[in-house]
Amino acid sequence: MLSGSNRNDILSVEVPLGDRSYQIEIGPDQIDTFSQTVLSTMSDLTHVLVIADAAIQEPWANRLIHSLSTSLRDDATPLRVSSISVPSGETSKSISQLSELWQWMLDSSTDRRSVVIAVGGGVVGDLAGFAAASFTRGIRFVQVPTTLLAMVDSSVGGKTGINLPTSKNMIGAFWQPSLVVIDTDVLSTLPERAYLSGLAEVIKYGVIDDAEFFAWLEANASGLVARDDGTVRAAIAESCQSKARVVGEDERETSGRRAILNYGHTFAHAIEATVGYGQLLHGEAVSIGMQMAANMAVDLGICEPTLLPRQTELIQACGLPTTFPEANAEAMLPVMQRDKKVSHGKLRFILPERIGSVRLVGDIDPSSVVKAIESCR
Amino acid sequence: MLSGSNRNDILSVEVPLGDRSYQIEIGPDQIDTFSQTVLSTMSDLTHVLVIADAAIQEPWANRLIHSLSTSLRDDATPLRVSSISVPSGETSKSISQLSELWQWMLDSSTDRRSVVIAVGGGVVGDLAGFAAASFTRGIRFVQVPTTLLAMVDSSVGGKTGINLPTSKNMIGAFWQPSLVVIDTDVLSTLPERAYLSGLAEVIKYGVIDDAEFFAWLEANASGLVARDDGTVRAAIAESCQSKARVVGEDERETSGRRAILNYGHTFAHAIEATVGYGQLLHGEAVSIGMQMAANMAVDLGICEPTLLPRQTELIQACGLPTTFPEANAEAMLPVMQRDKKVSHGKLRFILPERIGSVRLVGDIDPSSVVKAIESCR
Ligand SMILES: NC(=O)c1ccc[n+]([C@@H]2O[C@H](COP(=O)([O-])OP(=O)(O)OC[C@H]3O[C@@H](n4cnc5c(N)ncnc54)[C@H](O)[C@@H]3O)[C@@H](O)[C@H]2O)c1
Ligand SMILES: NC(=O)c1ccc[n+]([C@@H]2O[C@H](COP(=O)([O-])OP(=O)(O)OC[C@H]3O[C@@H](n4cnc5c(N)ncnc54)[C@H](O)[C@@H]3O)[C@@H](O)[C@H]2O)c1
Ligand SMILES: [Zn+2]
Ligand SMILES: [Zn+2]
Repeated sequence: MLSGSNRNDILSVEVPLGDRSYQIEIGPDQIDTFSQTVLSTMSDLTHVLVIADAAIQEPWANRLIHSLSTSLRDDATPLRVSSISVPSGETSKSISQLSELWQWMLDSSTDRRSVVIAVGGGVVGDLAGFAAASFTRGIRFVQVPTTLLAMVDSSVGGKTGINLPTSKNMIGAFWQPSLVVIDTDVLSTLPERAYLSGLAEVIKYGVIDDAEFFAWLEANASGLVARDDGTVRAAIAESCQSKARVVGEDERETSGRRAILNYGHTFAHAIEATVGYGQLLHGEAVSIGMQMAANMAVDLGICEPTLLPRQTELIQACGLPTTFPEANAEAMLPVMQRDKKVSHGKLRFILPERIGSVRLVGDIDPSSVVKAIESCR
Repeated sequence: MLSGSNRNDILSVEVPLGDRSYQIEIGPDQIDTFSQTVLSTMSDLTHVLVIADAAIQEPWANRLIHSLSTSLRDDATPLRVSSISVPSGETSKSISQLSELWQWMLDSSTDRRSVVIAVGGGVVGDLAGFAAASFTRGIRFVQVPTTLLAMVDSSVGGKTGINLPTSKNMIGAFWQPSLVVIDTDVLSTLPERAYLSGLAEVIKYGVIDDAEFFAWLEANASGLVARDDGTVRAAIAESCQSKARVVGEDERETSGRRAILNYGHTFAHAIEATVGYGQLLHGEAVSIGMQMAANMAVDLGICEPTLLPRQTELIQACGLPTTFPEANAEAMLPVMQRDKKVSHGKLRFILPERIGSVRLVGDIDPSSVVKAIESCR
């Protein structure tokens, strides 16, 4: 386990992608010294474009902008700072919002050496990342994730993009950031339910990739829920480590390896689509989805018997749901059959074999799917 | 020199980009056998999306669609073919046209294995290429260029994109095609002035990269202007070879090498911007721009003395202009100073040293620029 015991310890995780490798810096108190971190990674910097979620302009983005505006480069000239805020919420991942950003970048005299800084949750990270990927065929960008989900998942791995009116994440690019700065202090303003929702993805990494981390989570669940600083920092670092490892093995989702990150997600997407987006938070749907997947694995006889009870207990200890009485198998099944992981009517799922190990299982009968859904009602 | 003497010879040029390498196939009679060419490159193909310039739907795109629709894959199942046409002209490289394509791709059940086929000039190639680059973070695409400019320049090298209302090519991606198919027969419907305009880029390759090719062009100018099939084919192949070599050395415009392709273009862009786009065709502006650059090189004493007269004669033999009486140095200079190749008020130009060799020269005084412009009035 990576760990930082002192209040000011910064944990570093590398995403290993050859000449596109980058660091994730995790720790408290990073907003006010942000400009130093960025300048030490990109010494040629002269112009930054800060794109922030409107809801966190105050208290977080303005401090970061202040840090950038008052900093001096080696030759004693100041950085040129442009900034804009984006309305909160999934609807900002749209063509019209993207077009506005493009025009604003042009009006701000953005050139190939400019750097985009995305400050917010997954919405702003995905949107601003794609704006960076596509402006003059790609400029550098930095992720400053401010939700737990964005810290452990969306800010790492280079998936950027927007939605089409009827379909999520259809447009985008694989475009890696040059740096990810995670200031754990910003979690202090994140509402309880949003925070806990992010823990679902943390638990996911334990199940799919790292039994030791899973055991550590079991031992530290109460500290996590209480947002104990050192515990949160270590959990984020381990999660980023897992994601970095998987992304490093399959950057563009071509080998299939990256699919393990979808553990619980085929069920979760079907839940989200059938109850209407927004009723359940994403991490809540993922928790239930992981339970459905684990039940299916048990049912198919491919899963070590202690996994399901341990997973159930950890999810509950993190204040997340393990059942969903409204789950409607009849409505969910057709959604899953439209999912990309379907081949010839049969379904495919990422299923756990034991804590720390999952695999893609194809050829699954719709009746097994229904049974798995019903096991969590 | 590559050459194809028989009517049915197909010349092949490889663009060497590691695992992104691809072939350019150049020859007549390729539209009706197009499906075979594509299927032999991409055996896993099940769905193609043909995006064509409206002006060439008849006579060319429909034949290509017919070839695709009637073809059978190895397992005897037909290809699924979706097709759409895009209005001719630069205004199609817009956000609204791109959004329409994205929605159409979604409605056509496009997935990661689908392949976009761009049939048209540089406008459709750039637009459809970026649609391919950005749909589900990138799907494969094939270029079928139908103007001479697109055959020798825009279809090769992976630059794709659209314009913002006030600025050309601001949005896009480096996204390499999987295959370029150049059917020289389609040039038969291209108007004379558009055809000759494309020859400017052909001459450019001789000056910047290949003295032997330049000499061959001098000897074959009349055959080129008369659109003699074997001559045209060889000129396209040599041009693609030059562009492929430069792109292979500097795929993403990072080393500076790719800048040599801008020979004549800093002047040309300033001419185009000051006379209003459309009055001069791009290749006409490039011809004049190369003359201005050569005059500047002579003036600075860095250019072998026979270059300017030889270049002048070849441009004229290709029916292209070498002077531009309306050139307005006072209007052009500020445009060039806004250009990306300016650093600290001084200007930078790609200038010829001798036939086959150019270099980037910085620190050029505005007075030299004015003199070069005036030398071509
Ligand atoms: N790129 C990827 O790999 C990837 C992975 C997973 C999810 N995603 C995407 O991420 C998005 C979801 O991300 P999210 O859950 O972070 O949602 P989000 O960005 O909408 O943020 C959730 C809410 O929290 C608010 N907020 C953000 N930081 C805050 C803070 N520090 N204090 C108080 N409020 C704060 C936001 O204003 C918003 O209302 C989805 O669009 C999803 O598609 C992308
Ligand atoms: N991607 C690159 O590397 C690159 C390089 C150079 C230029 N470009 C771009 O290319 C575009 C210009 O390309 P273009 O000159 O091919 O223009 P274009 O695509 O607009 O085509 C010119 C005209 O010819 C017509 N046409 C096309 N093929 C025809 C045929 N076979 N018969 C009859 N008419 C035909 C079209 O309808 C159009 O009206 C610009 O947008 C420029 O930015 C891109
Ligand atoms: Zn998720
Ligand atoms: Zn050109």
